[in-house]
Amino acid sequence: MQEAVYTYFEGQNSYLVCYITKPDAKLPLADGNILILNTSKLEQVIALSNGAKCSKADCDKFVAVNELAKRRGFFWNSFEIYGGSGGFVTYGPLGTRLKQNIEAKLREFMIKKIGIYEIESSVIVPDKIFVASGHVAHFKEPMVECQTCHTRFRADHLLEEKGLSSAEAEKMSLEEIKTELQRQDINCPDCKGPFGEPTRYLTMFETTIGPYAGSVGYGRPEAAQNIFVEFNRLYNIARERLPFGCINIGRALRNEISPRQGLIRLREFTIADLEFFFDPEESSCERICEVENEILPILLCDTRLKNCEDITPFTVREALNRGIIRCEWQAYFMAQAKRLLTELGVPAKNQRFIEKHPWEKAHYSTQSFDQEVLVDRWGWIEVSGHAYRTDYDLACHMKASGVDMTVYKEYLNPVETEALIVKPIMSKLGPVYKDAAGKSATALAKVPAQQVADAMEKDGYIIVEGYQIFKEQVEIGKQKTTVRGKRFVPHVVEPSFGCDRLFYVALEYAYGLKDDRVVLSFPRSIAPIQINVYPLMNKDGLDICAKGIQRLLVQEGFMTDFDDAGSIGRRYARADEAGVQLGITIDYDTLSEQTVTIRDRDTWKQIRVAVSDLSCLLHRYFEGKADFEALENALI
Amino acid sequence: MQEAVYTYFEGQNSYLVCYITKPDAKLPLADGNILILNTSKLEQVIALSNGAKCSKADCDKFVAVNELAKRRGFFWNSFEIYGGSGGFVTYGPLGTRLKQNIEAKLREFMIKKIGIYEIESSVIVPDKIFVASGHVAHFKEPMVECQTCHTRFRADHLLEEKGLSSAEAEKMSLEEIKTELQRQDINCPDCKGPFGEPTRYLTMFETTIGPYAGSVGYGRPEAAQNIFVEFNRLYNIARERLPFGCINIGRALRNEISPRQGLIRLREFTIADLEFFFDPEESSCERICEVENEILPILLCDTRLKNCEDITPFTVREALNRGIIRCEWQAYFMAQAKRLLTELGVPAKNQRFIEKHPWEKAHYSTQSFDQEVLVDRWGWIEVSGHAYRTDYDLACHMKASGVDMTVYKEYLNPVETEALIVKPIMSKLGPVYKDAAGKSATALAKVPAQQVADAMEKDGYIIVEGYQIFKEQVEIGKQKTTVRGKRFVPHVVEPSFGCDRLFYVALEYAYGLKDDRVVLSFPRSIAPIQINVYPLMNKDGLDICAKGIQRLLVQEGFMTDFDDAGSIGRRYARADEAGVQLGITIDYDTLSEQTVTIRDRDTWKQIRVAVSDLSCLLHRYFEGKADFEALENALI
Repeated sequence: MQEAVYTYFEGQNSYLVCYITKPDAKLPLADGNILILNTSKLEQVIALSNGAKCSKADCDKFVAVNELAKRRGFFWNSFEIYGGSGGFVTYGPLGTRLKQNIEAKLREFMIKKIGIYEIESSVIVPDKIFVASGHVAHFKEPMVECQTCHTRFRADHLLEEKGLSSAEAEKMSLEEIKTELQRQDINCPDCKGPFGEPTRYLTMFETTIGPYAGSVGYGRPEAAQNIFVEFNRLYNIARERLPFGCINIGRALRNEISPRQGLIRLREFTIADLEFFFDPEESSCERICEVENEILPILLCDTRLKNCEDITPFTVREALNRGIIRCEWQAYFMAQAKRLLTELGVPAKNQRFIEKHPWEKAHYSTQSFDQEVLVDRWGWIEVSGHAYRTDYDLACHMKASGVDMTVYKEYLNPVETEALIVKPIMSKLGPVYKDAAGKSATALAKVPAQQVADAMEKDGYIIVEGYQIFKEQVEIGKQKTTVRGKRFVPHVVEPSFGCDRLFYVALEYAYGLKDDRVVLSFPRSIAPIQINVYPLMNKDGLDICAKGIQRLLVQEGFMTDFDDAGSIGRRYARADEAGVQLGITIDYDTLSEQTVTIRDRDTWKQIRVAVSDLSCLLHRYFEGKADFEALENALI
Repeated sequence: MQEAVYTYFEGQNSYLVCYITKPDAKLPLADGNILILNTSKLEQVIALSNGAKCSKADCDKFVAVNELAKRRGFFWNSFEIYGGSGGFVTYGPLGTRLKQNIEAKLREFMIKKIGIYEIESSVIVPDKIFVASGHVAHFKEPMVECQTCHTRFRADHLLEEKGLSSAEAEKMSLEEIKTELQRQDINCPDCKGPFGEPTRYLTMFETTIGPYAGSVGYGRPEAAQNIFVEFNRLYNIARERLPFGCINIGRALRNEISPRQGLIRLREFTIADLEFFFDPEESSCERICEVENEILPILLCDTRLKNCEDITPFTVREALNRGIIRCEWQAYFMAQAKRLLTELGVPAKNQRFIEKHPWEKAHYSTQSFDQEVLVDRWGWIEVSGHAYRTDYDLACHMKASGVDMTVYKEYLNPVETEALIVKPIMSKLGPVYKDAAGKSATALAKVPAQQVADAMEKDGYIIVEGYQIFKEQVEIGKQKTTVRGKRFVPHVVEPSFGCDRLFYVALEYAYGLKDDRVVLSFPRSIAPIQINVYPLMNKDGLDICAKGIQRLLVQEGFMTDFDDAGSIGRRYARADEAGVQLGITIDYDTLSEQTVTIRDRDTWKQIRVAVSDLSCLLHRYFEGKADFEALENALI
């Protein structure tokens, strides 16, 4: 086995990517130097082709995954020919398919199985909505500007790079940030210049809607508000029944100050916000039995306060019984989120839910958990948020728009109530106030009954709007009324997924080495290409036969590709690196015996099957009804 | 049969929508008046609930479709609770599914069958790209402002409303627009005030990327540029072979001045831009045989110049042979586009391709056709554009970015060429120029050989950079060289679809009346809900059995809904109006005999089938392998 293998390729940024397979492996570099790598761990080293460069920060899967993604067309930084623009990526052909497959999985878990509505709405949103929601006031990040080169940075991220937790950094005031930057002697990472005063920067993209300057619009930083403002229509579509949920999957925009983490922090990204509306008095989840034994690995607030990262595993049932999670629907969605990430290839042990401290929670939330996944460079990163938003958002929009968004609930048993009433005795007020008697009674009616009763009890009279009314001029009594129902504002729990982060973790977890070669071992339900078709040779009718088989597979709905370039070994390698699940090779036996070989990406095993069985077997395999090994036996 | 039927519903804008079933039908209005409608055509009349209002413009399917869309949750104007914001719509649950089904059809026709790449890219794009593409200079519309109420309008649209064709209006200068507005005495439609000077307004949304004021970004008005700027990456992914195509389906933004046509003119919409790159010297399409007999109904430029709208039908083959369409790939995509629209429910007779006049074409295009569909209110509307963009875009981005985007093509047979060469004779230059002899030779090398030869022929010497060099100091001869290939900029044909318009025409063409009731007769492959499940009664285990059958259908991948509210007749009517393809009713025989009835939306016919056959039959039906009538026979 080689000590270090590497692939070299030309591009705008030339890379030398190496995989180290033994401790202290020696790596010959393009400039003639030899780099000795003192690590026994599987590691990737990146070096610019014009010389050795190897810092700890570069030695991780993040670099390897990004290099592969760029080279094979999963994704890359957009607008490279113009020098790029931070925070924007283009998903290439393989990436677009993978992303679509991941979003289909999300829909399967979060929409189809539960019967959730889906809507599609606009990215540009008038300012009124984000004023009402509190975003214009709160959606700000601390920023510092270098006094020398005038580059601007997220102040909290600078502190996090020096070891502060994001929880600590988030709760700091501008004054505290300033002090901490000075205390730690943090200067501009680019030019080492000193920083000026920290400020808060609104991280929404601002624009003008239509031809009038005053008509401000924002790029939405979340898709949730587009659901809340349409609540009345949705409730109507739900035939005025609770509970119901609505998801909105689409582009969102956050005008980050200095995004430097690839897919983890983008200025434009895909968000999936699911708002589930329910009656807080009837918050039980009819589907909780489907998930009650699912284990949620939770990092509790209490544990975090002890500067400890120990995870406590709870079953959904335990978490609810102990009050760790307050709402059954929230627990249900958390369990579904865990299952989704598992299906995307992230093992349960590398997932956790972190309970948010009060100061970390968004302004609308009473209880929040972040679902986190462990990645190689960044440690634990958030892939979904689970917030109990209560009636905050609907109440805000009711207040700001003046439109009623309450729902009516009829009581099972009408409630009998007794109310205190004050009745002026007109025959006694008349002689005193003459023509103004009516006015005095109207004035009295404006005062709450209890207040009148208290005054009469205490003083024997009350003065309202200049009229002195005595105890004997009124009748105070009780009246029974039947209340048949009430109006209330529904509560909301929200699971919210960042689709680009789901994409990134799926890609990083698929990434591995087998015999020194990169293999992307995607779960079979999300592999961007399901089947590659290879004619063994590009002649003797093998190529025509292969094209025919590919056409058949396309008709059957499979995602396929065709590769006839180079040796069959090279083609397999190329396919493994792209995560193609199966390969079908057409050889001379195909022509004589009507059989093909199917090759599995992960085991590299091959089986031989009849062309006539192909479509049926492949459907069974991709529907998850048979494993690869079982395919051959399935024929018997 | 009633003369006029109507449905009334409460909402923010109360509507009374009527369907007139005989000539001069009498319609009783809410205010006690009777409206007599003198039309024999099926027509919809809209009247505000507070009184009669019936103008020709309102009497069309546009109103009826929009009312239905809003009431049933296909789509509605966004942000209603805040008074709305023109040009933004929210697709509700039914609409989102329909839109996804339409986009899936588009992908089937334009991606899967052809093997086109798909990418996903950002809506926010740095200004450099749109400066290079010419958008910042050209993406402007003529605007006039009312001097009284200061409302702003698209000047060309005001003229079109007075009968000018869009072709005429589009080519007018600001001066001509001003004259025409005055000549036709056109004032503000809102307040009748006079207009000021027309101006040109940039209809792109502008914003700032990141925290620096100078960093301008635009909302992309098309997705095509995101493909062009990534050409080098895509060419690399295509393993440096032409032709290949790439589609980009996503949100686009156009900051319309006064959008007033519902889904037809939105500020935010979904575009599908497909850029097909090919070698202009090898432009034949390998798939042309699949479509060569497809008839393209073309409205030719020559016909249009005669103020005539007669359509000339050409087969694809004829259109190519006669030079009506210049590029085979363009003809191929036009044929595919026609087939796509037919599958969305638009009959061929209501489709046409309109050849664009030189002054109507975008600045980048040498030949353009718009695919148009006939709709009730707006007449012919564009649903896709087919432009031969040549090498315009790649050349622009090469020039602006300085990055080479040419491709290399090896000749099948290397070309032998003879080149004129000028060789300085150093032994003769040396004595004259001494140390500067080298410099004089270098200076000479900068002059094209032909120019040197001409000067020697004419004058016997040439002066370059101050050196006078004589005929006898150089050798002029010919040298043979072998040219093995060349570099060139690929050409592009582009089909570009407006997905919201595809959605609108699919909805309008599905809309019809049967026995005075609205039925949305979508083609079965795009019905937003495939199957509704109905328990006949909500008791005796029918409801539980129905839920079980629905769960089975969901597992099998069908889009289903459940309805147990009201009489079965009402439920059928509700489903027909939502375009639900089939209904499955669970009755007492289901419990005793394990059979259900399946009801067809369009014929209202019902058949009885065994529950055990259900899933297989439904798959056959929705895969288009069996018609509804055939389902019953399929059992025998």
